[in-house]
Parts: sequence; structure tokens; C-alpha cells
Amino acid sequence: MAEVKVAESVADFLAQQGIRHVFGIIGSANAHLFDAVYQHRDLELVCLHHEQACVMAAHGYYMQSGRMAAVLVTAGAGITNALTGVVGSWADSVPVLILSGQEATKQFKSNNLARMIGIQGVYVESIYETCTKSVVTCHDPEQVLQELAKALYVAKTDRQGPCIVDIPIDLQAARLDVDFTKHALTASLNATHHQLSGLASEDLKQVVDALQGSQAPLLWLGNGLRRLPSDELQRLVKGLGLPYLTSWTATDLFSPIEGLYAGHAGTYGGRAGNVLLQSCDLLITLGTRLAIPQKGYVDDELARRAEIFVVDCDPVELDKLASRFTNKCLADAPTALTQIYESVQAIAGLDFAPWLEHLRRVRQEMPLVEACHHNAAWVDSYSFMAELGHAAGSDATFVTDMGTALISGFQVLEPSDGQRLFTSQGLGEMGYGLPGAIGAWFADPTRQVICLNCDGGLMMNLQDLHSVISQSIPLKIVIFNNDGYLMIKHTQNAIVAGRRAGTDVASGLSCPDYKPLVKAFGFRYLSLRKEDDSEAVIREFLDSDDPIFLEVYMAPDQLLVPKLSVSITAEGKLVSPPLEDLSPLMPLDALEKSLLVPLHPNSISLNRVVAEAKGDAIY
Amino acid sequence: MAEVKVAESVADFLAQQGIRHVFGIIGSANAHLFDAVYQHRDLELVCLHHEQACVMAAHGYYMQSGRMAAVLVTAGAGITNALTGVVGSWADSVPVLILSGQEATKQFKSNNLARMIGIQGVYVESIYETCTKSVVTCHDPEQVLQELAKALYVAKTDRQGPCIVDIPIDLQAARLDVDFTKHALTASLNATHHQLSGLASEDLKQVVDALQGSQAPLLWLGNGLRRLPSDELQRLVKGLGLPYLTSWTATDLFSPIEGLYAGHAGTYGGRAGNVLLQSCDLLITLGTRLAIPQKGYVDDELARRAEIFVVDCDPVELDKLASRFTNKCLADAPTALTQIYESVQAIAGLDFAPWLEHLRRVRQEMPLVEACHHNAAWVDSYSFMAELGHAAGSDATFVTDMGTALISGFQVLEPSDGQRLFTSQGLGEMGYGLPGAIGAWFADPTRQVICLNCDGGLMMNLQDLHSVISQSIPLKIVIFNNDGYLMIKHTQNAIVAGRRAGTDVASGLSCPDYKPLVKAFGFRYLSLRKEDDSEAVIREFLDSDDPIFLEVYMAPDQLLVPKLSVSITAEGKLVSPPLEDLSPLMPLDALEKSLLVPLHPNSISLNRVVAEAKGDAIY
Repeated sequence: MAEVKVAESVADFLAQQGIRHVFGIIGSANAHLFDAVYQHRDLELVCLHHEQACVMAAHGYYMQSGRMAAVLVTAGAGITNALTGVVGSWADSVPVLILSGQEATKQFKSNNLARMIGIQGVYVESIYETCTKSVVTCHDPEQVLQELAKALYVAKTDRQGPCIVDIPIDLQAARLDVDFTKHALTASLNATHHQLSGLASEDLKQVVDALQGSQAPLLWLGNGLRRLPSDELQRLVKGLGLPYLTSWTATDLFSPIEGLYAGHAGTYGGRAGNVLLQSCDLLITLGTRLAIPQKGYVDDELARRAEIFVVDCDPVELDKLASRFTNKCLADAPTALTQIYESVQAIAGLDFAPWLEHLRRVRQEMPLVEACHHNAAWVDSYSFMAELGHAAGSDATFVTDMGTALISGFQVLEPSDGQRLFTSQGLGEMGYGLPGAIGAWFADPTRQVICLNCDGGLMMNLQDLHSVISQSIPLKIVIFNNDGYLMIKHTQNAIVAGRRAGTDVASGLSCPDYKPLVKAFGFRYLSLRKEDDSEAVIREFLDSDDPIFLEVYMAPDQLLVPKLSVSITAEGKLVSPPLEDLSPLMPLDALEKSLLVPLHPNSISLNRVVAEAKGDAIY
Repeated sequence: MAEVKVAESVADFLAQQGIRHVFGIIGSANAHLFDAVYQHRDLELVCLHHEQACVMAAHGYYMQSGRMAAVLVTAGAGITNALTGVVGSWADSVPVLILSGQEATKQFKSNNLARMIGIQGVYVESIYETCTKSVVTCHDPEQVLQELAKALYVAKTDRQGPCIVDIPIDLQAARLDVDFTKHALTASLNATHHQLSGLASEDLKQVVDALQGSQAPLLWLGNGLRRLPSDELQRLVKGLGLPYLTSWTATDLFSPIEGLYAGHAGTYGGRAGNVLLQSCDLLITLGTRLAIPQKGYVDDELARRAEIFVVDCDPVELDKLASRFTNKCLADAPTALTQIYESVQAIAGLDFAPWLEHLRRVRQEMPLVEACHHNAAWVDSYSFMAELGHAAGSDATFVTDMGTALISGFQVLEPSDGQRLFTSQGLGEMGYGLPGAIGAWFADPTRQVICLNCDGGLMMNLQDLHSVISQSIPLKIVIFNNDGYLMIKHTQNAIVAGRRAGTDVASGLSCPDYKPLVKAFGFRYLSLRKEDDSEAVIREFLDSDDPIFLEVYMAPDQLLVPKLSVSITAEGKLVSPPLEDLSPLMPLDALEKSLLVPLHPNSISLNRVVAEAKGDAIY
């Protein structure tokens, strides 16, 4: 009877299922799996220096390529260290397969719930129950491959997300009959599972009817569409001929379609995107969970004259949406988009010319980089982003960290001609940028990966600067030096009268002098202190073949705008403007001209001169 | 009606309760708490660069001082980043109070279980339920201080551990009537809680009777005794006049009592400690959970001629222990020790002179540093440890990371005259050493804190090397350079025929060149490549007033011994020796002479020549 070691069959299975990269860190409890993966000719094992970084790399890998990577961690601190990466993938619906080593099965036999399992084991199932699509600790060798097959399926089905298979060390070493393994696995892979279909025919009819009755329809595309290939998505949307917004996570699904793309909406949205959102008379969201930063805080005021259809695969997210959202369709978004496309093809005479002309005008009148996005003494992060985006080629992948990199990156960069832009959008954990970029590079080493960070956030995964060097990854790392945590300084301005605490060097938060530090790691180092020098420095940065670091010195209190901010009325009262009225406030007549709905009363009430001068930036 | 902001009353409460240091990282969801703590004149806020490091620092702070520190993290990734530190404190029964910011309470009102709460919130209660003593998300402003009082009480009561109070941002900003706050708090603090008492009188009588009938009694002291002051503990044990072992976590409870201290036992125990453990006829464990590395794998062979009494405060740990442990007493260990002391004082004529003489002889014949602990080409970590321990003063606190630092540190260092030695013993997470040492220094900046690391493990908290510099902490950091993960190389030798995968530079795990790196951070740098140079280099290292780094080059495959290893019989069969028969195996006659019990059959069966030459090191 031919036998195979379970660890080896795991490696074989991963390779068979198309996994090519495994990010991991070895420990005594995953040593058999590590050995098998390392020995496997079709798998590449990438060792990073923190398990959080391994999961974030797998997140970036998927965002770049649409292919899953696996993560291999050990028991105890190995799997606890993975948590932030897992929750990040959970929030962003990114499928990641995490294999964790565990103490031997005999340690579970007594059902005793002592604080530790065996020597170093932790209760993986209970910790991860509410932040993974599935998590299971295996107890029999026969179970391992079946759980693996199930996890891989579940991770990629309907709303995607991370799955954990926890494998005790004795099971890794166990030997199974080869035929048994094959049969069990085939059965498991062939099992019929429920999978969401597209729109029900009555829902589809309603959507199409609404489109036929609409003067100003708008699509809002989300990350749930990522399963479709980029060119297919672009073809469908182009064919529909409908204006569309993208969520931040969906920003790089395909290159913007000139004349249809409305940009982003939200509390840090683009002015044009928000104005168009508020002006539409029909809003169809596809595969976006409508997070708060995206839809704003006041549902009743969202797209206030529009009929709204929400198409999403997660019933819990649909349930989350309040009364403003009457037409909620539980459906697979890629299928729904295809259905709508096909239905519309069959209809003659849909013509949205005036609405498209309005979009063109609004986009032109409201450029992404504004007058306030320049600074005589420092480099403004917005104008820098715009220049970097234009200078970079179509093979550029921008991976941002949080804070300045996130906000100015997603507000200004409109990745075109195959450029890519992503981050860990839902959890927004500081430190994602670097491992996310590493993952992106492993997914496609032909691309120019540009990692955008801030001086505060990079610290959270500082250790893996070494991995960039040791793995010879030609990563381009930008760091915005703003003396600490800029976003939180603005929070402090808004909620504790500007008092600083742990946000800059004067209040106890010190970031290192990156120049000698990154040189010691082995990076080339450039810096940029004046906007005038940016063209030459950006060129040198982009043309380098080596791992290179560019430190951009920005004003330590630079505003991150436009943004929705509490503002002051003529009578001195604080009020919340509607979503389309971002700070710094634009002149009322310009706002009115851009809207196809009447001005919101709060917009009329605001003292625009004071508010603009104050540059209020309440978080 | 006088009002107080909840965040300020939290800061006041912490200060009132004796908290002096708060380790934290700010985010938008804890900004009110951060402000209040930072402004409070009796609290010092220490900003580190990863939340895991904050919790580990609080762990080290408690281990150094017996005083609790608080940890202040934000919502989302802030609290998920804390997990490994929390589980480490949980495993070691270290009380830590963690305050986490959370999304506003309105985000909880709908009972909708979407993947994220509000913008970035996570389900703190479900993640932390099985690895904290208590975790609660507050929903009313009135609840905050009461939960805080409860958490502080629970963290320190019976078996200690971490507690989390999760405080939504709106509750932090809420204002409460001052009188209400005071009354509610007083009521909460005065509430009578169940707390474990000492030994029941019949249990105490049994223990004392057993002592009176014993020729060779042995105490095994654990971390559960840490609540007693060091000198009080030493007085009690000295007064009892009984030989004692300590668990690794209890190693620095008080300075060794010459003539009574038997050292450590366990799979990486000392030879003397194991021999004495196996020779005793009465074993009384006090406040130790008898982890596997401590008691070995085969319960039936533990102290095989002894009656065993186990005194512990955790019924789950007592329940974990199998049939070998018949006398299990649920009691507070410090109280039990005091009771035993007092009972014994009342008895005349207890005389263990021959047993004490045996202990003296065994300790002398089995020194901690052995002939195998020297290396002509490299520095051996054991002989280095011994020299460092002798050269360091009584004000030295050794904080180790894992791997070589842990094993050779705890096998060789016997902290005396007030020296201290600790780590995160239960979870054993790589990366603990640095933040643990930072915490120890904040707990007592008059001490000379020496942090012992390896090249692999330091990477897990590399970022906080900067905190050492920016906070002007005169930390002394040793790094054992052994090209990767030495412990796991030995695992690979044992279980995958020595194949390497992700454990050294040749198999994909690269560690940085620390010399330029730590200099860039701002450390002084020394290195040691030969044992002959160690005296001078150690002197220079210890005498420095600056943050200083000493890189010790050791053999990349150095054995970590003595240890319990699977060994080979004369017939070539693999067998497990008993706990007292550590590898490298000592001559059988010497082993026999040291034991007061007959040799174990497995010891007799081993081929000692082969095994010794092979230096087997199976994990």
C-alpha cells in the first residue's frame, strides 16, 4: 500500500490548486509542513519576519493578481501574530488560506481548557471564529486535506475572505494511504456547494425598468467585482455606457473610462464624485458594502433624489443598511453586472447625453489637485502624488499604507493604463504598505511596485525592510515625513482643542531618522524637500533598478482635504454639511451649478469665508 | 452639578489605583483617553511602535516590580495587534490592564454583525474571550469606571492575568456627575468578591504529616508566589529549611538560598535539579502549573518514589494533572506557604541533614556549565552566559527573548543578590525580549537592564530599538548570532532528517547585518567572536552608560544542552530516557550515585557512548 506523508500531500494539494507562493515563518509546530512546502518544486516559500506581514503579503498578492497565496505559521505566537492580517483580509473580502501548526492531538484529548494547549498552543478556533470565513483545528489525519479543500473553496466563494486550517504536528507527520487521500479529496472537491447566483428575474426587471425611466443613472462599483478579469469588467461598463463611481477598494478594477468615470465619493471623496452621487436619480451599487467613509454618516441624505438598488453577496451587509436603501438584492455582483449589461444591450434608445455632459463638465471644473494642494515651504503630498502618478508607467502598482499615503493617494491617484492602487482598506492597519507591496511583487515581479508610507506607519512592519533587500525586491518606497501621526493630529484638532499627545515628537512620539536607517538596511536613499525639485527626484526614483527609498518632507500639519467636516454657520453654530459640500468649502454658486438637486439647507447656512480660512479638518 | 469627562475620570482612577505608567499608541478611537492620560500629572505615557510591544512592556514591568502597568490601544488593528502580548500575559498569569478605544456606541445599536463595526471596529469580546480573565465592551458612560474597577480587581485576584476594557469613543468624551462617579466607584471597589484562601486545615495537616514522615522532601516553587515580597519569601523558605526547586518563571522570586536551592528541573532542566526531583520522597509544588517542559512528558515517572502535593489557585490546571497527582489542593499558594511555615515552626525535630548533604554533593558534582559548553572556534552561549552573570552586578535584570537566549539563559544564570531574570515563559513568543526589557526599565530605571536576544527573534519587535534610543534608555542588548532559528534547526535535525527550510540563510531565512543597522538606530556596537576575549568585552559592555549592543557569534549549530532527548539503546532502538537522564548522557555509575532511587530501566538500556558522541538534540 503506497503511503504519503500528510505534510507532503498538503504541499501537493496547494500546488495542484494553483497556489504558487507560501508566505511563512517556521516554528517547531509547523516544521513538517515547512519542510514539505520548501521541498515542493512548484511552490515558493517566502520567509518574512512577522506573521502579520505574511498575511498582509498574501492580501497584496491577491489584490495584485486575483490569485490566492497561502500563509504558513506555527502554533502559539505564530497564529496570534497573524490576527491583524487576517482581520484586514476579512474586512476587504480577500481570500487567504492560512495553515497553522498546532500542538499534537493528544493535547486536546482531555478536553481540559487550561490556558495553554500543550506547551505553546492557543485556542485558534475561538480567537478566529468571528473574523474568518472558516477556522478549524484538525483532529485526524484523514481530515486535513478535506478541510483544506473546503477552506480553499469557502475562501473564494460568495463574499470572499480568510480561512484557517489548524494542523497539529502529529497529523502533519502522519502517513496516509495514497488512494484514500485521492478519493477523499476528489469527493471533497466535487461536492456541490451552494453558491450565490445573479439577480432574480424580477429584481433584474426592476433595475432595467428604473434605468429606462432614469435621466441620470449612476453605477457604484465595488471590490466584489474583482473576480471578473479587468478587461471584461471594462468592456461591460463601457458597453453599458453608464457613469460610474468606484469605491476606494475598487479603484483599480480597470482603467478609468473617459467620459463615464465619476471618481470616488465619500467623506474623503472627490468633489466631482460627491456632486455626481448627490445629483443622480438612480443609483445602482454593485459589490460594495457601502462603508461609512464611502456613504457618509447620514443615510437619508445619500443621493437624495435617487432610487437606490444595492446588489451585494452578503446578507449581513444588506441588513446593515437602513431604511434609505429599499431595493436590496442578494446576488453575486459580477453575475448581476453581466445580466444588466445583457438586458441593456437588448434595449434601444437609452440616451444619457445631457447627464454625461454634466459629468464631463463637473469633472473638468473640479480637478483632483486644488489650489490648496501646494506649499511653498514643504512638499504637499497631493501635488506629489499627482506628479508621481503621471510620471509612473503603466506597469506601476501603488500600494499605500495609512494616513497621508492612504488619503492623498486615493484622493489623487487615478490608476490608468493598467496601473494599480490598493491597500488594506477596511481595517486600515498601519504597517500594511510594506508587506502588501512585497506580496504584490511576488504576484507579478514584472511590475514596478511603489510603496507609499508615512514615517509613523512604516514602523509597524519595519523588520521587513530587510526582506526587501535579502530577497532582492526592486521596491520603491516613498515615506511622507510629517513628524508622527498626521491624521490623529487632525483628530486632536477636532476633539481635544488641538492638544497633542503621542502624535509628534514634542508629545512623546518619535520616529527614527530614516536616512541612515534605510541605508543600513541596504536601500538607496533620496529625499525631497521642495516641490520645485520633485520632477527630477521622481524621475531618479522611478528609474532606479535598486531597492530605493524616497523621503518626502511635508508640512507636519498639512491638511488632508477635501473632506467632509463639521462647519460653522453665519450664526456661529456647528453643523454637518451634506456629503457634496466638502471642506475647504467651495463658493455656494459653484456648488449650486454643479448639482442637479437643490442646495441642501445646511450648505446655505454655512459661513463659507470663515470655514474656508480655518481649513477645518475635523475627523 | 459638577461634571467630569469620562476619559479624565479614567486617568484619575488609574493614578489613584497606583498605576504610574501607560504604554500605548494613539488612534482616532482612543484619542480622548490618550489626551487625559497624557495630561495627568501622575501618569507617564510611553509611546512604543507596535501594540504587541506595549503589552509585552507591561508584562516586563510587572515581572520587574510586581506593579501593574496599563496599556492603551485604539480600535481595530490597535487591539488586534495586542493579541500576542495579551496571550503571553495570560500564559504567565501576569496582570495587565488593557484599555482599548472602540467605535461609537451607536454602531452597536442595530445588533448587526457585519464584518466591521462602524469604520474600523472589531469584535473585541469574541476575539479575547478565551485568553483574558475578563473582556468587556462598555455601552454606557456609567459603566466605564465600574468595569475598570472590576477589571483591575479581577486581573490581580487568584490566578492573575490580563483584562480588557473596551471603551467606545463617545463614552470617553461623555460627561458624568462627579458625585455619581465617586459613589459608583466606591461601591464597585468595596464590593466583596470571592477570593481564594489558603490550605484547608485537613490539607494542611496532611502536608505537615507528610513532612514529618519524609526523609527527602522537596518544594517546587512557582510564579504563583510572586505576590509575596522577595525578602518575605526568602525568609519563609529559609525558615522551613527545605530544599526547593523553582520553575523557570519563578527563578528570580528571591536570591538562591545556599544549601537549599536545587535549581530547575525539566526537559531543559539542570542535571542536579532533575536528579534531586527524582530522588525526593515528598514533593510539594506551590503556585506552579507544572507545564510540560517542567514536568516532562511521562507523569508516572515524575518523582517516582515521592508523594506529591500540588497547591495551585487554578482548578483547571489542577484538573489537567493526571492520576500521578493525587493530592491536589485548590488554594492560594502564598497563603499556603505561610501556613506550612507556621505549622513547621511549631514542630520540633525536623532534620533533613543527610538529604541536605546529598543536595550539596549533587550540586557540586553537576555544575551548570559543562565541558561541552566551550568552543574553540566560536563563543559558546552557555559559557558566555555564565561569565555575564558573574560579571553583572546585583542591580542586573536579565530579560531574555526565545531560542538560545532563553535556553542557555535559564539553564545557566542563577540570579543572585537581587539579580533578576525573566521572559515570556508560557507563550514563548519571539520578540518579547526587547519590549519586556523596556518595560522592566520603566518599572525601575535604577537597574541595569540586560536584554538577551537572538538574531532571528529580535526582528519581531525590531521597530522598538528606536524607542530605546528616543527614550534614552541605557539598555544593554546582547544578540546571539546563530544564523537564523537555532532551536528549529535542532527540530529539523530530529524530525526531518536535518533538512533545512526557512531556518538559516541558505534555506531562505536571512537576518540583517546588525552592526550597521543598530549603529544607524544610535546604539554603540560591540562584537565577540572568541571566548578568550569575553572578559574584556563583557566588562566594556557592562560599564557603558549608553544604549549598547553586543553581538555574540556562536556556532550556527551549537547544541542547547543538557536536555531530555530520545536516545538509542545498545540494540539500536529509540527510547525516551527518564527525566534525570539528560543528553549528553553522563556515565551510568555517576548517574546511579547521584540518585536516591534505583536507575530507570531505560537508562540502563542506553548505549551511552554513541548517544554522547551524537549529541542528539531532539526537540
